[in-house]
Amino acid sequence: MKLAVLGVGVVGKAVLERAEAKDHEIVAVADSSSAAVDSDGLDTGKILSRKSYRDRVGNADVEDALAADYDVLIEATPTTLGDAEPGFTNVRTALERDRHAVLANKGPVAQRYSELRDIEDASAGTMLFEATVGGAIPVLSTIADHAGDVSAVRGVLNGTANFILSRMSTEGLDYEHILAEAQDLGVAEDDPSFDVQGTDTAMKCVILANVLAEEDREFSLEDATVEGIKDIPGSALELAREDGRTIRLIGEVTDDDIRVSPRLVPEHSELAVSGTTNIVQLETANAGRLNLSGRGAGGPETATAILADVNRLPER
Amino acid sequence: MKLAVLGVGVVGKAVLERAEAKDHEIVAVADSSSAAVDSDGLDTGKILSRKSYRDRVGNADVEDALAADYDVLIEATPTTLGDAEPGFTNVRTALERDRHAVLANKGPVAQRYSELRDIEDASAGTMLFEATVGGAIPVLSTIADHAGDVSAVRGVLNGTANFILSRMSTEGLDYEHILAEAQDLGVAEDDPSFDVQGTDTAMKCVILANVLAEEDREFSLEDATVEGIKDIPGSALELAREDGRTIRLIGEVTDDDIRVSPRLVPEHSELAVSGTTNIVQLETANAGRLNLSGRGAGGPETATAILADVNRLPER
Repeated sequence: MKLAVLGVGVVGKAVLERAEAKDHEIVAVADSSSAAVDSDGLDTGKILSRKSYRDRVGNADVEDALAADYDVLIEATPTTLGDAEPGFTNVRTALERDRHAVLANKGPVAQRYSELRDIEDASAGTMLFEATVGGAIPVLSTIADHAGDVSAVRGVLNGTANFILSRMSTEGLDYEHILAEAQDLGVAEDDPSFDVQGTDTAMKCVILANVLAEEDREFSLEDATVEGIKDIPGSALELAREDGRTIRLIGEVTDDDIRVSPRLVPEHSELAVSGTTNIVQLETANAGRLNLSGRGAGGPETATAILADVNRLPER
Repeated sequence: MKLAVLGVGVVGKAVLERAEAKDHEIVAVADSSSAAVDSDGLDTGKILSRKSYRDRVGNADVEDALAADYDVLIEATPTTLGDAEPGFTNVRTALERDRHAVLANKGPVAQRYSELRDIEDASAGTMLFEATVGGAIPVLSTIADHAGDVSAVRGVLNGTANFILSRMSTEGLDYEHILAEAQDLGVAEDDPSFDVQGTDTAMKCVILANVLAEEDREFSLEDATVEGIKDIPGSALELAREDGRTIRLIGEVTDDDIRVSPRLVPEHSELAVSGTTNIVQLETANAGRLNLSGRGAGGPETATAILADVNRLPER
């Protein structure tokens, strides 16, 4: 298929590096201020080196990329809160042009889901967004396989928070110590608030709630009860441990509730994953509980989910 | 879609019970000696009660079901070794008529994979078989999502053997005691050899090896090195436990090796699932290790995998 890749951060780059090996053609690439377009296919190696040396991908405008002749728009710009722009407009533009859209950006499907579903209903294009939840873990596709039979989802959905909690537990050190270590390792960002306050987990849970909901219901961040991990003292993890338990930041979606909070879980239970690992538990009507775990973030991981979505799309 | 269901055991019944709620129509049903066919759609409730009272599904012949006007043939007759009949002929007939085939029967894809792939290549129909490995755990679809990037698969793929091993470990009792208990509970069959000798796990591994292999390679049971669990003394599990480990029947598929054998695994590792739970670990190039676990067998579980396959098929 012909792909337009919007956003050239870790995820966009990983898509550019892998798409050709999967028999796709890149016809447009855009970062926040520049673009490159070629309907005969771009040289992605050249684009990536231009991006790294000049912080531009080409001499065209982002609008040119949106107007290019692609089959699938890959929306990999940074997740934003509120109006979810520019991701929302990018996806809308693709669908209104009867093209497919595949999202890694959580904003549009967490904050403006119904609007997008309405636009998709009127479009010949399809919108998929496996990469927004759990990296390469097949969460949304498994929910789709269980067509209406999934009653609840819970899990560890943020690698940064989980790294900090599992290190606090094994090392017996305080939050601030481990955060500094995580920042040194590149596991936590300079401003880690999105991860440690639970916002990232909450957005993923909102997306899951939207997928599970009846057609006329919509969820957004305002519907989630969210508590982060900053205020957990090292002593709490120590006490939990003496009791054979540990603490994890758990996101949970049930029929009418979205909740993100630190919770006690048995030390050797499925939910007690360590390091940056994510896990998702699906409660199903016909198959009991399914556990799906693996790396929940990262460029190659997220690109894998994006390209899997591309393969699920009908030919145009 | 219009479905023909061949085989009315635990799995076939579960498909018949669920297909209509998923907007499918059953136009043919066959057990080993009788069939019912109606191109306007059969009353599945009536078929199921006829099967339970008279051990027949109708007055037609199995050939009539094979010749019916279905979109998808569901092959749910018992798994057989050797020539994999009658499953092989059922699937071949469907594909040669340009219909889709979805298998729960492991025989044809474990024993005669290349033949079926050749027939599928010449057909407008598609063959899918998610239900043959790990029940409702999304194993084959996840491998497909990682398009060529899965280098190895290992896991616990037989619930009966795992039930026996995990009970032997926790109860400190011998194989014969626990087998009798498992038979009482219906977890093990009267003749448990298929499960405890590792044959069932080996067939699943052969299917995985065929899916992972380059196009010109084919695997069958003869390519697998297989050792079962019968000869494991309770004392071995006790010794393992003192060392923080336990024993599980692990099936493993690597580049050119299929191996089923009892192995020592850390007591709290992902592979040490308990009871009848199955787990599959995929080693991927771009996303590291994925762990997928859940119920690996059972009527509703297997029917879920079958109906998920049906939803993946192109419309005819």
